[in-house]
Amino acid sequence: MIFSSDNTAATPPEILDALTRAASGPALPYGADEHSDSVRRRLADLFERDVDVLFVSTGTAANALGLATLTPPWGSVLCHRDSHVNNDECGAPEFYTAGAKLVPLGGADAKIDPDELRTAVRYKKGDVHSVEPSVVSVTQATETGAVYTVDELRELGAITKDAGLRLHMDGARFAGAVASLGATPAALTWRAGVDLLSFGATKNGTMTADAIVVFDRALTPELSFRAKRAGQLTAKTRFQSAQVDAYLTDGLWLRNAAHANAMAARLQDGLKAVPGVELLGAADANILFVRLPQPVIDGLLADGFVFYHDRWGPGVVRLVTSFATTEEEVDALLAGAGRHAV
Amino acid sequence: MIFSSDNTAATPPEILDALTRAASGPALPYGADEHSDSVRRRLADLFERDVDVLFVSTGTAANALGLATLTPPWGSVLCHRDSHVNNDECGAPEFYTAGAKLVPLGGADAKIDPDELRTAVRYKKGDVHSVEPSVVSVTQATETGAVYTVDELRELGAITKDAGLRLHMDGARFAGAVASLGATPAALTWRAGVDLLSFGATKNGTMTADAIVVFDRALTPELSFRAKRAGQLTAKTRFQSAQVDAYLTDGLWLRNAAHANAMAARLQDGLKAVPGVELLGAADANILFVRLPQPVIDGLLADGFVFYHDRWGPGVVRLVTSFATTEEEVDALLAGAGRHAV
Amino acid sequence: MIFSSDNTAATPPEILDALTRAASGPALPYGADEHSDSVRRRLADLFERDVDVLFVSTGTAANALGLATLTPPWGSVLCHRDSHVNNDECGAPEFYTAGAKLVPLGGADAKIDPDELRTAVRYKKGDVHSVEPSVVSVTQATETGAVYTVDELRELGAITKDAGLRLHMDGARFAGAVASLGATPAALTWRAGVDLLSFGATKNGTMTADAIVVFDRALTPELSFRAKRAGQLTAKTRFQSAQVDAYLTDGLWLRNAAHANAMAARLQDGLKAVPGVELLGAADANILFVRLPQPVIDGLLADGFVFYHDRWGPGVVRLVTSFATTEEEVDALLAGAGRHAV
Amino acid sequence: MIFSSDNTAATPPEILDALTRAASGPALPYGADEHSDSVRRRLADLFERDVDVLFVSTGTAANALGLATLTPPWGSVLCHRDSHVNNDECGAPEFYTAGAKLVPLGGADAKIDPDELRTAVRYKKGDVHSVEPSVVSVTQATETGAVYTVDELRELGAITKDAGLRLHMDGARFAGAVASLGATPAALTWRAGVDLLSFGATKNGTMTADAIVVFDRALTPELSFRAKRAGQLTAKTRFQSAQVDAYLTDGLWLRNAAHANAMAARLQDGLKAVPGVELLGAADANILFVRLPQPVIDGLLADGFVFYHDRWGPGVVRLVTSFATTEEEVDALLAGAGRHAV
Repeated sequence: MIFSSDNTAATPPEILDALTRAASGPALPYGADEHSDSVRRRLADLFERDVDVLFVSTGTAANALGLATLTPPWGSVLCHRDSHVNNDECGAPEFYTAGAKLVPLGGADAKIDPDELRTAVRYKKGDVHSVEPSVVSVTQATETGAVYTVDELRELGAITKDAGLRLHMDGARFAGAVASLGATPAALTWRAGVDLLSFGATKNGTMTADAIVVFDRALTPELSFRAKRAGQLTAKTRFQSAQVDAYLTDGLWLRNAAHANAMAARLQDGLKAVPGVELLGAADANILFVRLPQPVIDGLLADGFVFYHDRWGPGVVRLVTSFATTEEEVDALLAGAGRHAV
Repeated sequence: MIFSSDNTAATPPEILDALTRAASGPALPYGADEHSDSVRRRLADLFERDVDVLFVSTGTAANALGLATLTPPWGSVLCHRDSHVNNDECGAPEFYTAGAKLVPLGGADAKIDPDELRTAVRYKKGDVHSVEPSVVSVTQATETGAVYTVDELRELGAITKDAGLRLHMDGARFAGAVASLGATPAALTWRAGVDLLSFGATKNGTMTADAIVVFDRALTPELSFRAKRAGQLTAKTRFQSAQVDAYLTDGLWLRNAAHANAMAARLQDGLKAVPGVELLGAADANILFVRLPQPVIDGLLADGFVFYHDRWGPGVVRLVTSFATTEEEVDALLAGAGRHAV
Repeated sequence: MIFSSDNTAATPPEILDALTRAASGPALPYGADEHSDSVRRRLADLFERDVDVLFVSTGTAANALGLATLTPPWGSVLCHRDSHVNNDECGAPEFYTAGAKLVPLGGADAKIDPDELRTAVRYKKGDVHSVEPSVVSVTQATETGAVYTVDELRELGAITKDAGLRLHMDGARFAGAVASLGATPAALTWRAGVDLLSFGATKNGTMTADAIVVFDRALTPELSFRAKRAGQLTAKTRFQSAQVDAYLTDGLWLRNAAHANAMAARLQDGLKAVPGVELLGAADANILFVRLPQPVIDGLLADGFVFYHDRWGPGVVRLVTSFATTEEEVDALLAGAGRHAV
Repeated sequence: MIFSSDNTAATPPEILDALTRAASGPALPYGADEHSDSVRRRLADLFERDVDVLFVSTGTAANALGLATLTPPWGSVLCHRDSHVNNDECGAPEFYTAGAKLVPLGGADAKIDPDELRTAVRYKKGDVHSVEPSVVSVTQATETGAVYTVDELRELGAITKDAGLRLHMDGARFAGAVASLGATPAALTWRAGVDLLSFGATKNGTMTADAIVVFDRALTPELSFRAKRAGQLTAKTRFQSAQVDAYLTDGLWLRNAAHANAMAARLQDGLKAVPGVELLGAADANILFVRLPQPVIDGLLADGFVFYHDRWGPGVVRLVTSFATTEEEVDALLAGAGRHAV
């Protein structure tokens, strides 16, 4: 009955099993284990090219490390004003970059507006009195649950690369975007110009492992030094890599995401039928913003449903589903909403 | 047959079981889970006072976060020249502290010499032309396998506190020190003046979880902001806390450490009988430095034993045992050494 | 004929004379010279209380050092979106603070809107997922030439202090504000809650010296370490302090500012009479924003007048006067504008 | 009668005159003034190649900015353990580099020992667990008054460049070294591999201006951003550049240094004749370390001579001369020493 975040879910049995299997006998530390190799191979298949991978303990670390590798300290990170890197990481990007500036841009559904980006990538470029536009960070799926289409990403990528900037993707919910669009991971990343991807896994199934996928492999040495220095290079890497290995096996990552998306769609469909409910913005993946009548909010809270409701305008509620959300939970919420709406 | 490091061991079944049990159903994120509470209670019992705890993914993160909370950027960290923070963290303390200076001190067995410390804590104090002595960091057990006695810690603590500095302990192998001395955790930490402890767990049993134990709880808010900003605040904290919870249950942490120590002692005893072997320094815990005849080194490597041998003087070898090291492995190494020594 | 900035003016003879007098014989370094003492006394008189003073080489250094002393790295600096610290210092505040976040607020005439501030000072306070509101920075006079009244400052100061934040003032053109308002320096600073003031002198007369005035003197030790570490503690301090000493003698600083203001007022009055000219915003001090017909802009540039004209909307021009601007220069520009407007 | 430092001297009349001449009429800011151009031309002549130049307010800023441009944050700066960057800048290099590590090396007369350097430049290169050797910093003349010969610099330069590191020179007393050796500035810098030079001027004549000379001009854009961001880009640059311009005119810089060196030599010669005086180390430039009998130290202090005497071993005194030191002052000290030695 928790719809507050997809980070409250546990982990699928496949991942727990893999961890259990990995927990026998010795293994070489610092990424020299067999699961780390396997993950590299699986990601190369998935993205249709050689990639490097670094395991990290949080999405915040993935983003901050990645951005620090893509901008000098006197650079700026162009991102959406509602992005996680801008709002929800306590300045981790500023810490890791040694003080780069996050420049917030607008755009519907937490997607960066291409026209704003066109101006921003060239703003005071080369002027020492101002920070230097250096990297664009897009979130896929966005913080409001929308998904950039391949064409949208290509456009942003072209603007970014034409101006000589780097492109970073916060893919905390990348799986949800892939599942939503049916596009290839390659089309959604490096083919659109993405240099580094925060390949989110925790929200979609793993326990203590996220990853950075490096498309421009010339960045890997710097990223590796930064990761060690940040305290992100684990000794017993196998216990992270085994999780991600299982996550990537037999399509588990996509299956989980598709399920979470389907649960959000079911929620959305059901809420449309509830009197007084207003859908807010796109809900392409597993996040849904809706405006609910206050009695519905109060009633659902009293019923024990958990969700965020007091952070945006009056009546605005965020509902998040996960791989672990059941149809029963969705239907219970819908039933409650219908009951309290009367 | 791996004696290169205690970070190559897997994890005890108790910890794997705990993780499995924790992996069912939803849980609140960011430390609001029941295992986090349990760990706090267990640590309070263990240390005979209220403490705060933060979970981190590596010992390097634990050290760097702790030190950053104990020194201003213009401060200095007084540490042994052979310490992990000085040599093996790629400058993580410098990164986290925004550029504090590590001042290396001498002393036998990688223990800080009290006389050197006495001078260093007052060196150019208050002189803006020089970094300000701010925190002393001791490693317990040390990087060469020695253990500070309670009296030694008290002396260093008194020097530190009399001069108005903070005391930090890198306890990557704290369990080994407690097992070795039979002293209470309290006597080895806050009673000697320790403000913050990197409570190492990974080398001694956990998979992906270490912890910072905060004795001066006024430091906790700053430490919490720093941890989030460093990408060290995990969403699914239960999967770290459950590991540490099991680690602290029924004395598993001490039992593991005592076993590792016993295996090192068995190694040491056995090597004494091998012709041409020279024991180097104290081996109070689970690390042993010895000088071996070159044929013994070559022979053991050819036998498949894994250990570091080319980082120090000629013939100097480091052997590390763990909770998972078996008597059979130790005896096999001893047999091999005896054979190659002839 | 330069109206682009007040930083193109030379220096008054009084300051050059003082420097010449200071340049004889030896003097103790690092602020132990007699002029440094004299400046402290003069500032104490001026501000009606004991203050500390640090000399710096630029206004950017003054602001960045001051802000770094007033916010932790995980804090936020609330400032106007058009402020110098936000736009024109290449991220110096982010560098000096080790990555604090500048949060841009709105408000007319580049003054912070009190209602926006009221929300911002409490935004996600104490939430580790977000930067912590820590310091408010106001620019007096503002970047568009407006001046906060004493009442306006008191209001912002009360909002700031009620929420437990620090108050910083970028006084790059503080003299102009004092001259414009006729209020006491005390009323405009610490009586309104200001903790630290960047006391701008370069734009108003000195050559290579600016100063930080410290009202909360408990901040001075930290500020002194930060200044040294930033390379801002000069050896031959007398050559900075002598400049500021002369600047503060016999009201030179205020006389200079009053003259610059008068020249801006003369410009404004004259431009009102030019057909097609639109005055934009308040011009309380020595900066004037106007919209000019394009032929007037082109004509003045062709005449050799220097000013910024392509940074804002079409036709928008910034004109800045200084202590060195003459009535003849102003009248020449007015005559030219009148001629080209026909 | 001040022998404590060369930073207590005033400025020669030529520099004051130049400043006076520069102080008339407007000038373009931020280095677009004619004196900045002139300095670039004079330095190009002096160093026999095109160079870039940035003006800074202190030698500490020059060093810290230069080093930050030559090492990544995870790099190490190899320097002598007695160097100014290591001891006397309150961690400015650590601040500017975002936490690089200064690795102290030994060697007589505060010169880096080539054998130690040979080991250090390759120490754990490419190992992410350790900071990466990145730049070597030599001080010319050294902090104890010795001067590297051209051959010595070539050797250090070759070791540095063969290992792929950068070479930085702290030339706070570069003029003294040139005057002492009679070698060309080119031979002492870029021909030996120096990438960036802190071209010290303040100790040898200027009032508020030092400079960074860039031999590898590809570094200039980064250095320029860093300088602005550090608050080191002055608006009224002409008041710095005019000082350096005069300093470089008609050999003033070398004449001043030769005079300071001659005064030190005179001191050294005279002290040899004083009973109980022991000369310590080379005194190639304007710094002299000697061991004096305690009555001599006490007597000279009582006579009003100022010098450092309690920072090193018992009886060790540092005597520094400058361009402003007179033969009469030197002879007075010698007479006093002779008198007190009886």
